[in-house]
Amino acid sequence: MNVAFQGVHGAYSEAAARVMLGKEISTSPCETFGQVFERVERRRSDRGVIPIENSLAGSIHENYDLLLAHGLHIVGEIHERIEHALLCPRHSTLGDLTSVRSHPQALAQCSKFLLAHPSLHPVPFFDTAGAASAVAMDARPDTGAIAGAHAARLYGLKILKRNVENSANNYTRFLVLSRTPFGKFARGAKTRSSIVFTPAANRPGILFHILGVFALRDIDLLKIESRPDPRSAFEYRFYADIAGGPHEEHVARAFEHLGEIVSQFRLLGTYPAAVGPGLRRRPRGAGRY
Amino acid sequence: MNVAFQGVHGAYSEAAARVMLGKEISTSPCETFGQVFERVERRRSDRGVIPIENSLAGSIHENYDLLLAHGLHIVGEIHERIEHALLCPRHSTLGDLTSVRSHPQALAQCSKFLLAHPSLHPVPFFDTAGAASAVAMDARPDTGAIAGAHAARLYGLKILKRNVENSANNYTRFLVLSRTPFGKFARGAKTRSSIVFTPAANRPGILFHILGVFALRDIDLLKIESRPDPRSAFEYRFYADIAGGPHEEHVARAFEHLGEIVSQFRLLGTYPAAVGPGLRRRPRGAGRY
Repeated sequence: MNVAFQGVHGAYSEAAARVMLGKEISTSPCETFGQVFERVERRRSDRGVIPIENSLAGSIHENYDLLLAHGLHIVGEIHERIEHALLCPRHSTLGDLTSVRSHPQALAQCSKFLLAHPSLHPVPFFDTAGAASAVAMDARPDTGAIAGAHAARLYGLKILKRNVENSANNYTRFLVLSRTPFGKFARGAKTRSSIVFTPAANRPGILFHILGVFALRDIDLLKIESRPDPRSAFEYRFYADIAGGPHEEHVARAFEHLGEIVSQFRLLGTYPAAVGPGLRRRPRGAGRY
Repeated sequence: MNVAFQGVHGAYSEAAARVMLGKEISTSPCETFGQVFERVERRRSDRGVIPIENSLAGSIHENYDLLLAHGLHIVGEIHERIEHALLCPRHSTLGDLTSVRSHPQALAQCSKFLLAHPSLHPVPFFDTAGAASAVAMDARPDTGAIAGAHAARLYGLKILKRNVENSANNYTRFLVLSRTPFGKFARGAKTRSSIVFTPAANRPGILFHILGVFALRDIDLLKIESRPDPRSAFEYRFYADIAGGPHEEHVARAFEHLGEIVSQFRLLGTYPAAVGPGLRRRPRGAGRY
């Protein structure tokens, strides 16, 4: 199985793909998220793996746009904790380092560590794994990188320090994309469906009516988000995730009912609901809205 | 009036501050968003201006967290279109340039222009205005920057090309923060309130009940977003914006009613609703959910 992802080898998306789809997959790095979708559509890759939301940075609207622009199906999800490590060439020590390369967002997420080590000059780079790759290529004893620990193994770097991030609450939700929908679900399997819709009418309380479609059928709403789009006044979109899928009759009926109220509706996919590292601790009933 | 913002002089936040609060304000650059809040709290600045959501990148959760952690009030908002320009030293031409510095996100937002000009090597930088400042300081004929046109005036750079961004639909919503709430509103003034809440119970349909508080009083819901927080299972948060404020009796009653259903509730501020560049074209009734 070949899996497309955005970034260079060692990226967090690639690591998530291996956790979800197995260590034996082959992976194809892409420059952009759009190329991930295209590779899967053109049968060059069997699956694509993309990040869709981050606990600190929020939803990645670009990928919602690509989900709508392409005809792929979400067939899986995972919540992965993003842990940053300080990496350097094998024979370096912390005292040798004078500069650290990484993506500006990763550098910002490690600002406390960098403030505590003022000798480390942060240097912005396009991505974390690319910074690790360049540090390995240059092999300068004074230049390190902040990236995932898996990038160290891949590029033969030393892990000087793990968990240099400020906040432990840095999770990214990744999705698996496929040309065909998820097949049959086992009986009683916990599933999740992602939908996008645009209400047909713009009147106060329309979202209340829309949520009634689910609430009156006891369907859990797991995510709801209105998409700001100041350009096109009539194209307000909602992203929602609900528990279950149209293989269950009450959800199938809810989607039909929704069709009466919204002008645009798209089921992006129904897939096994993930139990992420944080979510394992989630008590029964939590997160149900 | 002194206004704190994150970034260096010439940042998009500083430009938004001048549009909202007047050209005659003095501005104080801060390294982090947290420092913007602290400067206002400690009376070093009269106001702070922060970005809160972007039409392409979504809500800036870090700033929602800071709004909750601090006691400041939102007193204004604006939607500004983000327009990137290619800047260079005064005597350079497009043919002279071999590298362009900017924030990776800005470079990605200008990828079509950069692909069409393969001689321009993109170089990541911490921020767009900082890239412009460095290009002016270095004054190398072969090095340009992608930043806002206002950064060119500020640093004495030449605007080689305006609107090098891929998408015209790149708007950022900025908020004005103050130590005291907005004073009295004129009769009939259009206002908006931003609230954050955590439902008291986790049961299917709870959000439906919460939205009923507003829908049954004909109060427009202008934004709704659930905040993914896989770490703390019980601390799901919702961000919502509604039309009006507690100076109106029906909204005051709605907030009281909401207090019965939610475990945490915070009014972040009530302020005049902005008519942004894109929103001006919004027909009556649009965007009401």
